[in-house]
Amino acid sequence: MSVSVRPGAPPGSVRREERSRTALATVCISGTLEDKLAAAAAAGFDGVEIFDPDLVASAWSPEEVRTRCADAGLAIDLFQPFRDFDSTRPDVLAANRRRAERKFDVMERLGTDLVLVCSSVAPDALDDDGAIAEQLHALAARAAERGLRLCYEALAWGTFVNTYERSWEIVRQADHPALGVCLDSFHILSRGSDPAGIAHIPGEKIFFLQLADAPHLDMDVLQWSRHHRLFPGQGTFDLPTFLGHVLTAGYTGPLSLEVFNDVFRQSDPTRAALDAHRSLLALQEETAAVLSPAVRERARTVELPPAQELHGYAFVELAADPASAPAVADLLTALGFTRSCVHRSKPVELWQQGDARVVLGTSVDVDGAMIAALGLETADPDAAARRAGALLAPVLPREHGPAEVDLPVIAAPDGTQIFFCSSGGTADWLTDFVPVQRLGSDTDPAGSGLEGIDRVDHVALTQPFDHFDEAALFYRSVLGLRPQHSSEVAAPFGLVRNRTVTDPAGTVHLGLSVSVLRRGTGWQPRVTDPQHVAFATPDLLATVRAARAAGARMLPVPPNYYDDLDARQAPPPELLRALCELDVLYDRDAQGGEFLHAYTEVLGGRLFLELVQRIGGYAGYGEVNAPVRMAAHRRQRSR
Amino acid sequence: MSVSVRPGAPPGSVRREERSRTALATVCISGTLEDKLAAAAAAGFDGVEIFDPDLVASAWSPEEVRTRCADAGLAIDLFQPFRDFDSTRPDVLAANRRRAERKFDVMERLGTDLVLVCSSVAPDALDDDGAIAEQLHALAARAAERGLRLCYEALAWGTFVNTYERSWEIVRQADHPALGVCLDSFHILSRGSDPAGIAHIPGEKIFFLQLADAPHLDMDVLQWSRHHRLFPGQGTFDLPTFLGHVLTAGYTGPLSLEVFNDVFRQSDPTRAALDAHRSLLALQEETAAVLSPAVRERARTVELPPAQELHGYAFVELAADPASAPAVADLLTALGFTRSCVHRSKPVELWQQGDARVVLGTSVDVDGAMIAALGLETADPDAAARRAGALLAPVLPREHGPAEVDLPVIAAPDGTQIFFCSSGGTADWLTDFVPVQRLGSDTDPAGSGLEGIDRVDHVALTQPFDHFDEAALFYRSVLGLRPQHSSEVAAPFGLVRNRTVTDPAGTVHLGLSVSVLRRGTGWQPRVTDPQHVAFATPDLLATVRAARAAGARMLPVPPNYYDDLDARQAPPPELLRALCELDVLYDRDAQGGEFLHAYTEVLGGRLFLELVQRIGGYAGYGEVNAPVRMAAHRRQRSR
Repeated sequence: MSVSVRPGAPPGSVRREERSRTALATVCISGTLEDKLAAAAAAGFDGVEIFDPDLVASAWSPEEVRTRCADAGLAIDLFQPFRDFDSTRPDVLAANRRRAERKFDVMERLGTDLVLVCSSVAPDALDDDGAIAEQLHALAARAAERGLRLCYEALAWGTFVNTYERSWEIVRQADHPALGVCLDSFHILSRGSDPAGIAHIPGEKIFFLQLADAPHLDMDVLQWSRHHRLFPGQGTFDLPTFLGHVLTAGYTGPLSLEVFNDVFRQSDPTRAALDAHRSLLALQEETAAVLSPAVRERARTVELPPAQELHGYAFVELAADPASAPAVADLLTALGFTRSCVHRSKPVELWQQGDARVVLGTSVDVDGAMIAALGLETADPDAAARRAGALLAPVLPREHGPAEVDLPVIAAPDGTQIFFCSSGGTADWLTDFVPVQRLGSDTDPAGSGLEGIDRVDHVALTQPFDHFDEAALFYRSVLGLRPQHSSEVAAPFGLVRNRTVTDPAGTVHLGLSVSVLRRGTGWQPRVTDPQHVAFATPDLLATVRAARAAGARMLPVPPNYYDDLDARQAPPPELLRALCELDVLYDRDAQGGEFLHAYTEVLGGRLFLELVQRIGGYAGYGEVNAPVRMAAHRRQRSR
Repeated sequence: MSVSVRPGAPPGSVRREERSRTALATVCISGTLEDKLAAAAAAGFDGVEIFDPDLVASAWSPEEVRTRCADAGLAIDLFQPFRDFDSTRPDVLAANRRRAERKFDVMERLGTDLVLVCSSVAPDALDDDGAIAEQLHALAARAAERGLRLCYEALAWGTFVNTYERSWEIVRQADHPALGVCLDSFHILSRGSDPAGIAHIPGEKIFFLQLADAPHLDMDVLQWSRHHRLFPGQGTFDLPTFLGHVLTAGYTGPLSLEVFNDVFRQSDPTRAALDAHRSLLALQEETAAVLSPAVRERARTVELPPAQELHGYAFVELAADPASAPAVADLLTALGFTRSCVHRSKPVELWQQGDARVVLGTSVDVDGAMIAALGLETADPDAAARRAGALLAPVLPREHGPAEVDLPVIAAPDGTQIFFCSSGGTADWLTDFVPVQRLGSDTDPAGSGLEGIDRVDHVALTQPFDHFDEAALFYRSVLGLRPQHSSEVAAPFGLVRNRTVTDPAGTVHLGLSVSVLRRGTGWQPRVTDPQHVAFATPDLLATVRAARAAGARMLPVPPNYYDDLDARQAPPPELLRALCELDVLYDRDAQGGEFLHAYTEVLGGRLFLELVQRIGGYAGYGEVNAPVRMAAHRRQRSR
């Protein structure tokens, strides 16, 4: 199937009739019902599950919600009005039936026909399949009289019914055409149930499907569920296999997200809904790969332009305000970079050393200095951009002069621009840059001619608190990057979570980090999301020595660090002396791989550079040394 | 023992020689080592445990840390430089011994003699008490040669050694005078171990005691320990009993706090250290009550001025800027309050209705309107203030005219002022107010004369994110309030945690709430910590009807709420109609107790009022209705 843009939908979304329908539970995102419906519609969802508390708190009547949803192109696929229906107590059952009738009234007004009934978590829950089936049959019969249907779901913490196998057995026994099961990936996978049995449930009896991912957490399943669910692709559940079983069973309803997450409940619902929709597009792509051809044909999973192979960083673009730009240029010079070219039409310069290319732009719109953009090398930039657009990435306007290369560019969740570039050929991005000599510039080409740095090793970007999980999915789905390392660092001002991602060939490494709790504006020096670029050199000690001689302001490392390093890892005394003399940090992995690295001071408030040398296959990032670096940067800022 | 102020220490702290020594692990609080030592000293701690990563990242040499600590009056009671000492692998053991020697070097430079050795969590850990005892004996012998001592602690997740009983058995077998045990309340109580056996360990073999509280959480103990520990009195552990066993054993070392907490790691270390020290003072008081007289005499637990009995709210003081004050006065009038008195010297008025007293002040320093102070009725205000001072509460300067009553006042963690007041007698706070008639004021006494409200039911204060647990301990220790309800509410803009506290007699009810994650400055309307005062009335429907007739701007409740209320609780149709007509919310508890309540709109950005009626012993706060109220206030703000 081909992908095209649906009118009125975000760029890159796919025509409705050509793919599975998607839905979003209102509980996933922040705001009032009005905010949530607007966000779901703007993100291109086909429908919503309405969580009753959202409706109850709304000033819109059910009739108005119905109209507003219809106007926005949203179906109301499911209504979630209550829990704990079945009961051993006749008085409670009678009250529950009355409650159900009142909610059926609301459903008629909403114009929706499907209601969720969860397995009971009450102490008076039934523990008798036949009796539950009987109570559900009676409720289904009553629903059917009103043109409504029920789907029955096993909660992972249901008093007695807490597996999908048992919920399906009860629905099978109840045997009413208006009663089916609802399957929820969290309730099934969190218990470690084998989802393979789902494929044997008749597809027409699976009335609804709720999808959620989650990180691996060893904690009470109810708390895990209520606070830590994630959108598919952000956690550790094998959702493609799970969804594969559901589609193999013949399920044809919407793919609906039901995600309870403390962060998403607080953050901008428009952003969160786009993130959510992206997760379903990526999940369908991954699921298609595990389906049999016959099921794939039938299941209408969306087909996306494939991820393009990456070939490393074409460039890293730094931006600085006029006050900070000279310091950045001086630092690049001292590190051995040469200002080789200037852009034909824009106020940016190209600094080079080996295969490391830094574009430096000056702008009054920047506060201090920052990483403005990453150029990623790929053979077909337009294909990469088509995939990004199909995955709802913000595709930015291409700004270029008449004879200049037209580079596609998208925005990452933290606002960093990602350019797709190819080198060589007619679209070589370098053709827009003019060598400095040819201009007859009155300044000499900068750079001391030192050799050392030969490429960009990695780029590290602190993520906005609300968008850390969004970023993981963005880089995974849009760029095809895979998780590499994860760590938690006790930084001087609070815990920091790190996650590095890389392309399959290992040419692009990206570090994403976020504070475990959102930072306040309190006592500690206000630091806006530090960022750094790490450059690789084959001889770090020589490179640092040369940089220092050339006046680079490298970050001082306290002597206590070297005493501790000696105690922990006992590097050879001569090496230890050199590390200490040059303020170089060190790590060694379990296989004997070694990592030498050194940092510069912070420039313009948030940006610093790193020099690294990897020996013997060391694949980490020296995370163990991060607190030492952070405390040293803090001292620099306090000076 | 009597309590007196130590020179240079915070008001109310107790002379060092008269009480147990206190210490704070540097890992408890935020900042660099320099920040942490300053905070511990300022809070009046006698010593610190230095966590090695803090030292490693510090620019101060061990000698300088030693000097700085001595200058600040801080002992270095413990050094925590490594984990995983014992090993089945000779090469690893040799490396560990070398590592220990290097850390012994650091200890000599620091001038501290006690080092912590935790049970190993490594795969190569020993599972043989005799062999571990042998390795520890050898290390202790080496330490003793250098004048140092070791304390061995069982981590709750140690590979093999994870109970205090086993760690003590190993220390007993090792039988070296330079080796003792370290007991940590978290590692012992988190596993559900019975601490009673501690009393049988010879006191001189308990080399160190680490104290931490924690909330009840059903999760992986390592994650629970690393993220969620609390200071004593903030969680659910029975620490007085635990400490009682340790003191009964004859332990005479410092009471030291080792608390890993995500919030404390980020927040102002000076505040956190004071909170920490308060927790140890309150814990000693509670522990003294469970000790035998002989142990109490020996143990030097601190004695505090006792908590004073409270007798309800003397007043609630509202403060408003000149733009908001008229609206507050109009609302009080419409609710039936009468402006009865004005203060002799300050720009504040007293509004009364029944036993509900509202002091309303106007000030240009206020942004909008807020709850500025609570007046709490107690027979001996000065005794209450002495206790507060002894517990390190900020005692504010008393501002009063020459002939005016001298009311003691302290600041709560959110900045709200707490006045201790007595009615009747020579210090009656009301004598500072002059009835409006006597002044010959040119304005009529306000108020429509309606009856209805008869007292303050409760006050609800949103707490600053960093200070929620601090507030719980503050109200518990300083005012003797006890936890009543806890709940978590799914508010439209994120989860909110609520905790209500009350005095033993139930005369003062206070609701404390906080968002589960710190709110960003993002998309949602910026609301600064909403606050409200709830007034009780014996006939809510009549009071609301009268208030509406008098022009009170009550908060509209959407009709959907009443449809849902009917479905859930089926109140009698006539009552339901009245509730709906008057925008009154409703709850019923499991015992049939009923709660009717209505809210006003928000005044001045963050303040609103509530009217409540309790029927049949209902003891809650209608938390189930909070999201409806929040969404309605949001609509009001969006207008």
